[in-house]
Parts: sequence; C-alpha cells; structure tokens
Amino acid sequence: MQINQDMAMNEKARTVVLARRPGPDISVDDFALVDQPLPEPGEGQVRVRNRYISVDPYMRLALSDRNGVSAAKPLGEAMTGGAVGVVEASRAPALPPGTMVTSQFGWRDRFVADASAVQAVSAEGVQPSWYLGLLGLTGMTAYAGIEYILAPAAGETIFVSGAAGAVGSVAAQLAKQRGCRVIATAGTDEKVAWLKDVLHLDAVANYATTDLAAFLARECPGGIDHYFDNVGGPTLDAAITAMKPKGRIVVCGAISQYNTPNYCAGPGEFFKISEKGITIVGLNVGMWFDRGKEAFGDLAQRVATGKLIWEETIVEGLDNAPQAFVSLFSGQNRGKMVVAVDPAR
Amino acid sequence: MQINQDMAMNEKARTVVLARRPGPDISVDDFALVDQPLPEPGEGQVRVRNRYISVDPYMRLALSDRNGVSAAKPLGEAMTGGAVGVVEASRAPALPPGTMVTSQFGWRDRFVADASAVQAVSAEGVQPSWYLGLLGLTGMTAYAGIEYILAPAAGETIFVSGAAGAVGSVAAQLAKQRGCRVIATAGTDEKVAWLKDVLHLDAVANYATTDLAAFLARECPGGIDHYFDNVGGPTLDAAITAMKPKGRIVVCGAISQYNTPNYCAGPGEFFKISEKGITIVGLNVGMWFDRGKEAFGDLAQRVATGKLIWEETIVEGLDNAPQAFVSLFSGQNRGKMVVAVDPAR
Repeated sequence: MQINQDMAMNEKARTVVLARRPGPDISVDDFALVDQPLPEPGEGQVRVRNRYISVDPYMRLALSDRNGVSAAKPLGEAMTGGAVGVVEASRAPALPPGTMVTSQFGWRDRFVADASAVQAVSAEGVQPSWYLGLLGLTGMTAYAGIEYILAPAAGETIFVSGAAGAVGSVAAQLAKQRGCRVIATAGTDEKVAWLKDVLHLDAVANYATTDLAAFLARECPGGIDHYFDNVGGPTLDAAITAMKPKGRIVVCGAISQYNTPNYCAGPGEFFKISEKGITIVGLNVGMWFDRGKEAFGDLAQRVATGKLIWEETIVEGLDNAPQAFVSLFSGQNRGKMVVAVDPAR
Repeated sequence: MQINQDMAMNEKARTVVLARRPGPDISVDDFALVDQPLPEPGEGQVRVRNRYISVDPYMRLALSDRNGVSAAKPLGEAMTGGAVGVVEASRAPALPPGTMVTSQFGWRDRFVADASAVQAVSAEGVQPSWYLGLLGLTGMTAYAGIEYILAPAAGETIFVSGAAGAVGSVAAQLAKQRGCRVIATAGTDEKVAWLKDVLHLDAVANYATTDLAAFLARECPGGIDHYFDNVGGPTLDAAITAMKPKGRIVVCGAISQYNTPNYCAGPGEFFKISEKGITIVGLNVGMWFDRGKEAFGDLAQRVATGKLIWEETIVEGLDNAPQAFVSLFSGQNRGKMVVAVDPAR
C-alpha cells in the first residue's frame, strides 16, 4: 500500500503552458510542454486520461495583453479548455474507471479533479471528439446563433464568414436547412469548393482573393438580412455596409483580429447600425448551455440522418497542440480542429 | 391677374444653405443665408410660412465627407429637416390658408410645395414647436428607444448619456417612470443640477469633469442593465465596460463623434459585447413613425398631466439657425433646440 502510493506520487502529467505572450505572429514557441506531478485521487476525486483536447480561436483572447472582460493568462499557466477522456482511477462511486468524461482543464494528457468538475458522457453512438465540437462549444455556438438569436426565415439571405470553420460550417448548414439563401466566405479555394460542392451553399468567395464589397453587392443586390460573424475586421465592415435596414448581426468571433494589439476595437462602419436600424447581438456560448439538451439532441439527430455534415481536422499528439492552435489563425483547418492525445506512455 | 402673378414671382424666400464643408470646428461660417425665388403655388400646392424650424445633431451627418448610408450634402444645398408653419396661400382645398402644417424642407422662412408633402396638424392644446420635438422626431426617438427597444423593467439600472438634451431628457424621464434606477451624464454643472433636482434622476455626472469609469463603478456596482447612448465615443466605451452580461444598448446618436473625420468608427471596447453577450440596437427614428399615434398620444398626455417635463431652448430668427445648430455640439441647449423664424417681413 505504501509502495503503491509512492509510485503514484511519482507519476507525471504532461501539460502545455503559456511560455511567452504571443505577438501578432503567434508561434509554437509561445508555448511549452511541461511535466507536472500527478497526485493520487483523493476521496471524491477521479484521475482522467484525456483522449482529445480542443483548440479553439477564443483561447487566443486570454493570451492577449489587451484585456477583454477577464485578465490576461499569466505566463507559465496551463492552457485551459474542453477535453474528453476516460476515468482511469476513481474514488468517486458515480464515476467508475472506464467512464467517459468531458472537462475544462485543457491541454494535458492526464489530470486529477473532483468528480463534480467533470461531466460523464455517453460513449454510445457518437465519436468522443464530438463532445469538443458538434456536441460541445462549437455546436452550441452555431445552434444558438442561428436557431435562437438570428432565427432567419426561409427565403431570407444570410452571410456566414469563416464558413469552412468549426462554427461556420454548422451555422451555414443550419441556415440552409431553414430555407435561407446562404452566402459565405472562406480562406482557400479548396474550402470554397467544399462549401459549394459539398455543403451546397449558394455563393462562396475566397476572402483573400476577392473584393468582398463587390461580391456582396453582386450576390445580395437586395442586401443581407442576417450576418453570422466569425471573423470581424474588414469582413464585418463589408457586411454592415451590405446589410438591409433592420438587418441582424450575431458577433460570434473575430478571428481576423485576435492577433492584433487590440482585438476589442469596433468596426469602422459601426455607426451605420444606427442609420440602418441594425441589431448586433454578441454571442457568448457560455450563456446558452442551458438549452444544450435540445440543441445537442437536434444536432446529433441531423448528423445521424445525414442531414448535417460534421467535419473534423484531427492532429495527433499533445506535443502538436500548439501547432494545431497556431494553425487556426492561418485557416489550416476545415471544420473542427481537435488534438488526439498520445496513448498511455 | 397678370399683375398679381408677376408680383408673386418676384417674392423671395430666405434659406440657409451649406456654404463650406465643416471640419472638426464646425462654425457659423460653414453656412450662408440666401434669397431664393418663391413661385406662386400651382394646382394642388400650398405656400407655407414657417414658424419654427428644428436643428438636431443628426443633421451634421449629411455634412460629413465621410459618408454614412447616404451621400454627403452638396455645397450650396439647403439645410433640410423638420419645420412647422402655417399655410398662407393655397390651391389645395384640403389645406386652406391658416392650416398649421409640418414639413421636412428645413431651414427657410417660406416655401411652396405639393399638399402631399406637408402634414396638417392640430393647433389645439399644444405649442406649435412641440411638433419638432415632443411630438416629432425627438419624442419618437426617446419613446422608441425606451418603450419599444429597451423596455427596461422596474428596478433595473439604465444609463442615459446626454440626458439634458432633447432626446435624453425624455428618455431619462420615461425610464424613471418605468421604475428604473436612472444614471445619467451631461456636460455642465447646471445641467447636472437640473437633472438631479428637477428630473429627479438617481445619479448624474458632468462628463467633462468626471472619471466616467469610476462614476459608473460607484453608482452601478452590480453593472448596468441598459444603456441609452446619445453621445458615442469614450462614454460608449465606459458603458460597455460597465454593462452586465446580457445587457442591452440602444445606439441613438454619437454627438461626440460627429465633428471627427470618421464618425462611423466603432467603440474601442466593441468585442466585449461578444464576451458579455450584449445586444446593441441601432435606432433610426424614421423606422418607428408607424407607432407615432400611440407614442405621441402618450407623450402629450404625460406633459398635459405634469408627469413629463418638456424643455425647449428657443433661438430667435432664421439668421441665428447656424449658431443654434453649431451650439448643439458644445452642449449649449437644455432640452430641444428650436429656431423661431422671423415674423413676416
């Protein structure tokens, strides 16, 4: 018994921490992989081995000098966020070994936590990684933005930026299934082709090589009814300019701005919202999980019946989490980017 | 008959035109008073002598090089906007001489127009100038913002900037009458005293001499539920920062920005609306006049019963319209600024 405990106390977990505050050129060198002691679970605790961790654009916000609503993450602190794994040791009867759980402890291979800090999830009928996307933050974000906030009507025009990304690809499909005309942007010709040929969106442009104002004017001569903003910056300005009077915008993300010195800065065309009577709704997904049961049930059903295409880009190995994260900002992913954690060493 | 017509053709109207595109220091020299020929009314037309014309901050927008939703007003063109006057000659049976009418032809003493381009109004029980404010654009703006858009509940906290102005003073009183805690800013100590002592607002600061962030933190320790924005700029940033999660903002005006090179620029703290799940609604009063009957009936009733204080600053003489307008931007008015047009020459 004493021997076992000593062995356990010598166990380590691998964790990715913030090593340096990222500048405009965020880099893998801004992160470091460190070993940390892994205690035995105490009474009511579990030890979890992660299978997948999530890397999402919003994680950039806490790394910024320019504070938003919360303070900047201190250097040396672990990257947090969604993860899904399996209980491998337990002193909590409700979560026996083998239970699949989601958590918010982020970029690490193993951790020990109170049972109340993890959520047991079913491993049946879904891929574990879906809990980080379709049935997690990503799916809830897209669902809240389209179904609860914008709720576009059939025949209305909606513009979705970043439409090949995790949130954008679901939002665009949900809007399409409501009978909307869906206009979209993405960052490579390959993504544009996927959005047109596979997701059947109505008009798609590569924002890097297209005059957005001209594209929107051509494709939406009567103006845009709704805009689902994942990117901010010049695209948000172009959308505001192209909106119909009384149009509605949901501001979900601003990935084009997160590496700038002041990601909080407003759009250049902001005051047009008053002249046009436009409504802008900020979307913080954390405020919508109380409707998760309905949303996730609907999303899982649509994927199961082939109505919704759920795409993932899976990067292998915790060591590669920083690279996976950094690559989000140059648009290397199609759909949801997740990191598969190394098997037990 | 021939003689009369010749005499009429020689009649003149006095009109204020845009003489020069205003810079950051808007000045009376940016305007000129000109005589224009005044034709006899044709079939179905009326000739109107204005009694009051309206000067409003929004009129600055059309003078800007930096276009919003409409093109900049060409130099030499008349200043347009609300006016109230009396028909003095008519070839439209529905509008006999003596009828009081409102119009949108702006800064001039007389004009000839189709009867369909003016609206007959009742001269009973109201001051004619009220049609330019309480029962016009100003009242409708405040009413739509408070009663239709924000609809704050009793006990909620609402911040109203520019609260001694035309729109702000009505908005603040409407909110107070809904049972809200009303926090406000104005630009002089005299206005602050008026808002506290006469309108009985709960806390008022002189924005020119107060640290707004500290004021809002002190007066709204739990955060702001609603913000009625008349001024934009740093005040909007301070409000966003002080908002509660899921707070609601109506962007009505941005008078602090109208003389800058780019009044359309968004707030520095824009992205906090996403982090906090805040909703911003742009208010263009032109989109709300379909509810004018209800709104104006309610407003007139409240003034008649002494529940609502309607304040006007009246400047005498069309010649002084530019000065009246320019002074809006240094906050010389309390309540609604109107210009009394010279009696018949």
